[in-house]
Amino acid sequence: MNVQVTRAYNFNAGPSALPLEVLEKAQQEFLDFRGTGMSVMELSHRSKEYEEVHNQAKASLKELLSIPDHYQILFLQGGASLQFSMIPMNFLKSEQKAGYVLTGSWSEKAFKEAEVFGNPYEAASTKDDHYRRIPLQNELQYNADDAYLHLTSNNTIYGTEWKDFPAVDVPLIGDMSSDILSRPIDISKFALIYAGAQKNLGPSGVTVVIIRDDLIEKANNDIPTMLKYSTHAKNNSLYNTPPTFGIYMLGEVLNWVKGIGGITEIARRNEEKAKLLYDAIDESNGFYIGHAEKDSRSLMNVTFRVKDEVLEKKFLAEAKQAGFVGVNGHRSVGGCRASIYNAVPYEACRAFRDFMKQFQQVNG
Amino acid sequence: MNVQVTRAYNFNAGPSALPLEVLEKAQQEFLDFRGTGMSVMELSHRSKEYEEVHNQAKASLKELLSIPDHYQILFLQGGASLQFSMIPMNFLKSEQKAGYVLTGSWSEKAFKEAEVFGNPYEAASTKDDHYRRIPLQNELQYNADDAYLHLTSNNTIYGTEWKDFPAVDVPLIGDMSSDILSRPIDISKFALIYAGAQKNLGPSGVTVVIIRDDLIEKANNDIPTMLKYSTHAKNNSLYNTPPTFGIYMLGEVLNWVKGIGGITEIARRNEEKAKLLYDAIDESNGFYIGHAEKDSRSLMNVTFRVKDEVLEKKFLAEAKQAGFVGVNGHRSVGGCRASIYNAVPYEACRAFRDFMKQFQQVNG
Repeated sequence: MNVQVTRAYNFNAGPSALPLEVLEKAQQEFLDFRGTGMSVMELSHRSKEYEEVHNQAKASLKELLSIPDHYQILFLQGGASLQFSMIPMNFLKSEQKAGYVLTGSWSEKAFKEAEVFGNPYEAASTKDDHYRRIPLQNELQYNADDAYLHLTSNNTIYGTEWKDFPAVDVPLIGDMSSDILSRPIDISKFALIYAGAQKNLGPSGVTVVIIRDDLIEKANNDIPTMLKYSTHAKNNSLYNTPPTFGIYMLGEVLNWVKGIGGITEIARRNEEKAKLLYDAIDESNGFYIGHAEKDSRSLMNVTFRVKDEVLEKKFLAEAKQAGFVGVNGHRSVGGCRASIYNAVPYEACRAFRDFMKQFQQVNG
Repeated sequence: MNVQVTRAYNFNAGPSALPLEVLEKAQQEFLDFRGTGMSVMELSHRSKEYEEVHNQAKASLKELLSIPDHYQILFLQGGASLQFSMIPMNFLKSEQKAGYVLTGSWSEKAFKEAEVFGNPYEAASTKDDHYRRIPLQNELQYNADDAYLHLTSNNTIYGTEWKDFPAVDVPLIGDMSSDILSRPIDISKFALIYAGAQKNLGPSGVTVVIIRDDLIEKANNDIPTMLKYSTHAKNNSLYNTPPTFGIYMLGEVLNWVKGIGGITEIARRNEEKAKLLYDAIDESNGFYIGHAEKDSRSLMNVTFRVKDEVLEKKFLAEAKQAGFVGVNGHRSVGGCRASIYNAVPYEACRAFRDFMKQFQQVNG
């Protein structure tokens, strides 16, 4: 259809790159989904054709992440930002507390939304270290009777990521928006995992929730129907019209991951890609300065500064000129950031590494 | 690209038919949006390319619906079902009431969600008439100091539609999910209008809200950030990642409406299409029985029964066989329904009319 496609080097932090094969397949069946004479987005969400798409996407996620049977997979709307509120609305009982591990802007936002409903507290924070690191397990302080303990598995803005998740005896809730499906994880450590789709899973507009059955049952009841996890669990995420096209794309992305070898292969590729860029930083003798401490480095978002501000401005301008998209740091912190999610190819990372090396050679 | 496309006769109640021209254009630029080397769904929502899409969609809606300057246009998530809760959360103060006009299942659902937060009451109801009609203006009972009065402009399940909206001296809120953009409306009668996109505006996953400035200011403050209209109004619906691809599609649908002659032409076409089917019912001598009273008939959803149940089953089976998609009535009421939203072509309606005539000839 498109014999030659010139693809940008897309390092956007999300929405971000999608696999070319997935886009090509979706393009091909865009007008006529599997002989229906309709686009997938024209199908009724109650039709058997759509339900197959929907259930297949769930089954693929269950398979890829080895999700145990006593967890439900939900496809919701509103992004992680709405989960920040749904979680305390559903699980925080009056007189109960919830611990939040603060590792960056997104966990701060989650904490703030919990304050609308109850009593969250800091179970740990690395704010005094400029969010350069993930706390150690022995830094976590929480109470056995807490409603839950909340953490953010990967911090897009600061470029840090949990390597091992703590084993705790309260329901553990993880915002995995920016690293879900990037590596194998032990789902059973968590009571609830949530993720906006627009980094590793698909386009924006779909939020994935993986929730343990007992948590659904324990939830508060006097809240809006649409904001109860139980509503969506009971109705297979079809209580109201879901974002059908987004879920279809998500399913196709999952098929792509299965096709290339699943979560182990994705993790191997992500390690390899990240190494290219971190090596360029580490070998630069201080020309590039990584933000994250080495043992907290994210495989998804490589954040760094150039040694002085004038050079950094020049670096970002020339990177843009050279066709690297989205390498400015988040508007709240500045600096440089390469987001190298699952769908960003090795070649794009190598090209950026080469650009970094060359820029240093000329300007170092 | 696709020289010949066999399009289904799509009468789905939503998600539903989209204009073929829009789908073709979206397909063509699916891999490379305007020379960016990225799909529109791979663009950052903070990029100038995406913001142009976003702002252009807003501008087109403002133009097409003649939305006055003191209204904000918001693109949200969660569908009309989440609006059912956001409205009382934002506007119902304790000790205050809100009137709901009950004209079908969706207004009942809206009413029920308001009960979670305060004191809604029935301002009118046609339930005793099996929701066959819209109440007359003099049937409405409400209080001058109510927080708002809520109505559903078109009832997809029962096939009724308000012809004229009441002029009331409390903030009027309208769920226009299933007839927005189908005909000219006087926006200034309303304080807030909301609509899921998946009937006349685009794919599912986008909710349009049109809200008067003074209502935003008056809203309750002690609610989740994501559920405050003010959050989205202040941030041009970019507080968090919006459903970018859905908004892009919505913008393209609006361009299509502008291209064919705007709201007046759309309304003319909708009248013409609906007349085909209602005439077939009226000329059938009781073989087909329309559900709605004539002066409450919807231009969007034509609901009817076949005179006996055996024939009705046969009708639905043969209609499906003949390639008419989605003509079963809603699972809660049964019967037959043809949803003929903006993007359903005249030819599809004529073909269905011919099918109805022929079926009657053979079985009448």
